Amino acid sequence: MERVSKNGMPVVGMVGGGQLARMTAQAAVALGQTLRVLAVSKDDPAARVTPDLVVGDPDDGAALRELATGCSAVTFDHEGVPQEVLAPLAEAGIPLRPAPSALVHAQDKLVMRTRLAEMGLPVPAFAAVSSPADVTAFGAEHGWPVVLKATRGGYDGRGVWFLRAGGADTDALVADLLDAGTPLLVESAVPMTRELAASIARSPFGQAAAWPVVETLQVDGQCARVTAPAPGLSGDAAARVQELALRIAEELDVVGLMTVELFETAPGEVVVNELAMRPHNSGHWTIEGSVTSQFEQHLRAVLDYPLGATAPVAPVAVMANVLGAAEEPAMSMDERLHHCFARFPDAKVHLYAKDGRPARKIGHVTVLGSSVDAVRERAELAAGWLATATWADGWSAHADDPRKDS
Amino acid sequence: MERVSKNGMPVVGMVGGGQLARMTAQAAVALGQTLRVLAVSKDDPAARVTPDLVVGDPDDGAALRELATGCSAVTFDHEGVPQEVLAPLAEAGIPLRPAPSALVHAQDKLVMRTRLAEMGLPVPAFAAVSSPADVTAFGAEHGWPVVLKATRGGYDGRGVWFLRAGGADTDALVADLLDAGTPLLVESAVPMTRELAASIARSPFGQAAAWPVVETLQVDGQCARVTAPAPGLSGDAAARVQELALRIAEELDVVGLMTVELFETAPGEVVVNELAMRPHNSGHWTIEGSVTSQFEQHLRAVLDYPLGATAPVAPVAVMANVLGAAEEPAMSMDERLHHCFARFPDAKVHLYAKDGRPARKIGHVTVLGSSVDAVRERAELAAGWLATATWADGWSAHADDPRKDS
Repeated sequence: MERVSKNGMPVVGMVGGGQLARMTAQAAVALGQTLRVLAVSKDDPAARVTPDLVVGDPDDGAALRELATGCSAVTFDHEGVPQEVLAPLAEAGIPLRPAPSALVHAQDKLVMRTRLAEMGLPVPAFAAVSSPADVTAFGAEHGWPVVLKATRGGYDGRGVWFLRAGGADTDALVADLLDAGTPLLVESAVPMTRELAASIARSPFGQAAAWPVVETLQVDGQCARVTAPAPGLSGDAAARVQELALRIAEELDVVGLMTVELFETAPGEVVVNELAMRPHNSGHWTIEGSVTSQFEQHLRAVLDYPLGATAPVAPVAVMANVLGAAEEPAMSMDERLHHCFARFPDAKVHLYAKDGRPARKIGHVTVLGSSVDAVRERAELAAGWLATATWADGWSAHADDPRKDS
Repeated sequence: MERVSKNGMPVVGMVGGGQLARMTAQAAVALGQTLRVLAVSKDDPAARVTPDLVVGDPDDGAALRELATGCSAVTFDHEGVPQEVLAPLAEAGIPLRPAPSALVHAQDKLVMRTRLAEMGLPVPAFAAVSSPADVTAFGAEHGWPVVLKATRGGYDGRGVWFLRAGGADTDALVADLLDAGTPLLVESAVPMTRELAASIARSPFGQAAAWPVVETLQVDGQCARVTAPAPGLSGDAAARVQELALRIAEELDVVGLMTVELFETAPGEVVVNELAMRPHNSGHWTIEGSVTSQFEQHLRAVLDYPLGATAPVAPVAVMANVLGAAEEPAMSMDERLHHCFARFPDAKVHLYAKDGRPARKIGHVTVLGSSVDAVRERAELAAGWLATATWADGWSAHADDPRKDS
């Protein structure tokens, strides 16, 4: 069945009304489309910028069916729709992109770890956890510290616990989590030098395109800054990481955007941390920094259009997140934006129209240039100002092991 | 009175729901805003991409007041709102950007010609026309051919008549137009080598920023292709043209975008053709080709934000319009887009979600690169394909005096 809008162009439905859907809606404009969004509230970031809105919960099958009516593809701005909700939709012929059988690898860390290990890809040692004893045994075999993770539902550092040793406290934590119904896995804490991310897009036809591999800086468990391309990563190493991502996408039959989050353990050596199958924070730099943004590319991929060029348009792009301040600044965001623009006429600001609750991602800033240090400083100053109304040192000045607070 | 939306960001209202408003709505997303649009129909290009829509006529005072309620600035995607409609709104304190006293120079060619001549700026010889004898006398004094123009309401080549000589036919045309109530002026046909355009933005504070001067190619009276920067224009000449545009903006107290359309009569020598006070077809290349797009800049200007950097991001940018074909192609736009993307993965396509009536602007394509000829060829092939579903020679191959068909 051909499904098109009144103006003859296809309609994509996106589950979730956050900033990823907001920026996808923005990209849809250029393609002659109007993104249809399923959002919890008409005040959600994406709901504010599209007239084609379905208000409902992402795990409500009826709302999902309403979203899908007339859509050429249904896709996601988060991984929160359970498999048991997706399965009947897929059976009914709704074109879910990615399919539930691929998406599960971004929803369930144990399924993902198991599959990637079977493929022979570099992942940390891991084990399922059904009792405190499983954690103790894993630590005894692989060494402490270990990382305990909720296999489903965690993001931005939530659902991750860094355990330095076994004992009564560890046993109690694990028991409490299991009692609360949290499915768990345990894995080795990988000693790493930094985090990288590799984003690709893949179409149903099987065409795939990779962007340059980027370096991500995590602060308090969530992405704070992205540098593209990853400084100091050799061409060979970058190509190997891109091939790893492309291989995962092909093997899992991913459609749309996929980002592989990686730990670099030695120069050019990586292990896979997480998978995301949607536009990703580590790819926001592509809006200005690449010929094709991840948001346009995601739409092209889920609609089986030929993919766009992924070349960078500047030697360096840095994206810094605007994270809600611990205390609401006295100055409004509108006023802060005035000052930001006055100081940095070249900073590209993206605001998500969200309340500035502490540590919440409320926007980002991208700066392009040729010197990593200079571009980082500008992006971090601008993003820090927008968050706090102070011209503070950027994260570069106090970057730490991102797991220290976990 | 402070006017802000529920999320604390200002609201801009735009009169008109065409592609300029559509692309302004797209730019508003990044600034945390939702553009409010007054459109004639909910199927208009901009109405399809914003949830904040007022349906009504642009010359309906009640609709304009509804649009303005809660807006920090009201601006325009066309010059079609009569002064008699704008005057009471301005008197009521509605923040019109630009003010009617500036906008009139983009609405009435006689007012504009008179004012620019008073400023000592280069304009063609011109005269008001209240009878056929006025045209005959002008031709006798300044020589034939002459150009007859409707002082108000013309655009994209409409309202312009190229008159090779006086006589009965010319008298009859002028008399018929005057009888129909068309206000007219006559001006010398300027021998020119090409057309240029200079776009600037200016804020209420008085800050102004100019983009590189571009070359425009008109076909059948409307913009077909834009090359940025204008090839072969010397740095001195470009600076003089930018200064001319900035001086006009300051003198007329323009707020928002303004484009000066110019005829180049000899290398670096120009006369002013038209003024536009809104985002303009000749500035679409700025979406990908400049640090700040004309659409974001227009929002920044009308809201009195500091303006963004206007530097180009590539040596050459070419924008080619997708103009509705004489006959509807057998292949749908969706299919045409597939083929376009397959051939040109670096072409940036913008579709306006409009029906493809002949010669109607239904989209545009921008390509960046370093060789004028190569970039033009790619942009023209892509735009021509999207228009006609044929890989035809671009306009470069048969560019003519744009006035020949007038």
